[in-house]
Amino acid sequence: MRIPFEELRITLKGILEKHGMDGEDADLSSFLFASSSADGVHTHGLNRFPSYISLIDRGLIDVRRKAVFESRFGAIERWDGQRGPGDINAWRAMRRAVELSRENGVGIVALRNTNHWMRAGNYGLEAVKMGAIGIMWTNTMPNMPAWGGKDPRIGNNPLVIAVPYKDTPVLVDIAMSMFSYGKLGKYILENKECPVDGGFDENGNLTRDPKIISETKEALPIGFWKGSGLAITLDLIASLISGGKTTVEIGKYPIETEVSQIFMAFSLDIFPDKASMETKIGETLEYIKASSPRNGCSIHYPGEGIKNTREESEKLGVFADDSVWKTVLSL
Amino acid sequence: MRIPFEELRITLKGILEKHGMDGEDADLSSFLFASSSADGVHTHGLNRFPSYISLIDRGLIDVRRKAVFESRFGAIERWDGQRGPGDINAWRAMRRAVELSRENGVGIVALRNTNHWMRAGNYGLEAVKMGAIGIMWTNTMPNMPAWGGKDPRIGNNPLVIAVPYKDTPVLVDIAMSMFSYGKLGKYILENKECPVDGGFDENGNLTRDPKIISETKEALPIGFWKGSGLAITLDLIASLISGGKTTVEIGKYPIETEVSQIFMAFSLDIFPDKASMETKIGETLEYIKASSPRNGCSIHYPGEGIKNTREESEKLGVFADDSVWKTVLSL
Repeated sequence: MRIPFEELRITLKGILEKHGMDGEDADLSSFLFASSSADGVHTHGLNRFPSYISLIDRGLIDVRRKAVFESRFGAIERWDGQRGPGDINAWRAMRRAVELSRENGVGIVALRNTNHWMRAGNYGLEAVKMGAIGIMWTNTMPNMPAWGGKDPRIGNNPLVIAVPYKDTPVLVDIAMSMFSYGKLGKYILENKECPVDGGFDENGNLTRDPKIISETKEALPIGFWKGSGLAITLDLIASLISGGKTTVEIGKYPIETEVSQIFMAFSLDIFPDKASMETKIGETLEYIKASSPRNGCSIHYPGEGIKNTREESEKLGVFADDSVWKTVLSL
Repeated sequence: MRIPFEELRITLKGILEKHGMDGEDADLSSFLFASSSADGVHTHGLNRFPSYISLIDRGLIDVRRKAVFESRFGAIERWDGQRGPGDINAWRAMRRAVELSRENGVGIVALRNTNHWMRAGNYGLEAVKMGAIGIMWTNTMPNMPAWGGKDPRIGNNPLVIAVPYKDTPVLVDIAMSMFSYGKLGKYILENKECPVDGGFDENGNLTRDPKIISETKEALPIGFWKGSGLAITLDLIASLISGGKTTVEIGKYPIETEVSQIFMAFSLDIFPDKASMETKIGETLEYIKASSPRNGCSIHYPGEGIKNTREESEKLGVFADDSVWKTVLSL
């Protein structure tokens, strides 16, 4: 079914308030959930909302807490997320990083003790709206084997890079695993294979079978040993700079919480050559889009597809799975 | 054959001076080339030295030029590499970034108009020696298709992340392509397949055959569309923040030059919890190394293997391919 954006948002806001969130936070969180679905990222939008509410009810997300400033080191600020809502903490941290970058060329907020930020791309888009390049990443609980290993000992540590460009920024929003467990679940439901190898079977052979990967828990890092290395260093940097928990430390809890995140911004407004930047970006993106396509592929730059999905959501309403919507309304 | 480190370095230094480099730069460049080979990175060490000299002789690397400071924006400095030696420019830029991070929490040098930095890992190791986390990347000429395309329109834009840890730091040193053309050439010489899929054949099927990939020029980005997105955004950030050339602009030259690079440092000395950081890193690395191995793999953290190779080079001398050494001596 399709639900008008504002109706969706107001519904979610009401539920959040019912579960103890204050009006200002509920305004923001409902906006972020509705935007994720409107942009087509259902796995981290509406479909995720019931489990978010469940985490609130179980006290794992503390809706009474807001992130607090801890200390400053030049262009870096450390914030304590106080185990509050991860989406709200992340959004505020990103905005603060952009503010810092206006004074310091670069701005960094290192956030510890926070929760899952839901759809990562939202914070990249927020940086871009403020005229900044945004680079941000989070650590997670152990959910992927390190290269050479069989048991999950590193996080898939999602990374976002966003670069402003007209009304359709470049947006890279990727986990260090080839496919998230949410995505694998989606393929299983649709009775589909992964489009490329996504993990290992019980004999250590690469496989595209989402069921097998969900069972072995041997998700494949992007670029094999390369993604494993990236995941390890992203975790270390986020936890060291924020003074927060590493993936190993998070793994000592029964459920993922107290994650560490980095929000880095480069405000483009401070550069004297800002005016020429859009031309440069446009030339790059046009050149890429003019590639000879491989096997009839259509070539888009990362994030380009969001515009159409969002326009469709504006025109027709935001898509919601019938059963998910029923569940949401019962919360 | 094996050559004592200092003998190797002095030999290279003499050749660099003969080709117009001043003594101070030749000291540094010879040290970097010898270190690359001593650490086992022959493709970007001694094996690369003859082409470096050829670029000097053809005036594409201008040995009379040193990078100059252009402007400062808070914790960011822009430097112009003046088409000088890429290794020397990169080493100085990394050191300057660490200095900036001591004042500003984070320090960034955005370097434009420089040349290929040879072995990227050297600058990560230098950051670590100065007590800092280092993150750095470069753009390149177009040498990889964007996801969905067939012709090379993006760079493979190598990225380094280095985290201090005792005498063996964590060092990730990766291109955004699965295998560099240098590595493919090595596999061809050794009559080997790539260990995993490395690109596409003429029918758009994935292949491990290094010969085919060298012919189609369809190298595979790490994580497929993910590495393609990373390469695009790393290029844009390096060129925008430095005010330098994008991959597309570099591609207008007949040979790669005037590349753009970012050097980012986080000095750990400024954090009050510095003392506990080594424990945290150690716990993470030990946990990873204690994984159940997949199919008898041995599990190392990124960069861990360098220590043994370097110790071997110290004991037995630095390995040099006989024919490469002969070529070097003739320069």
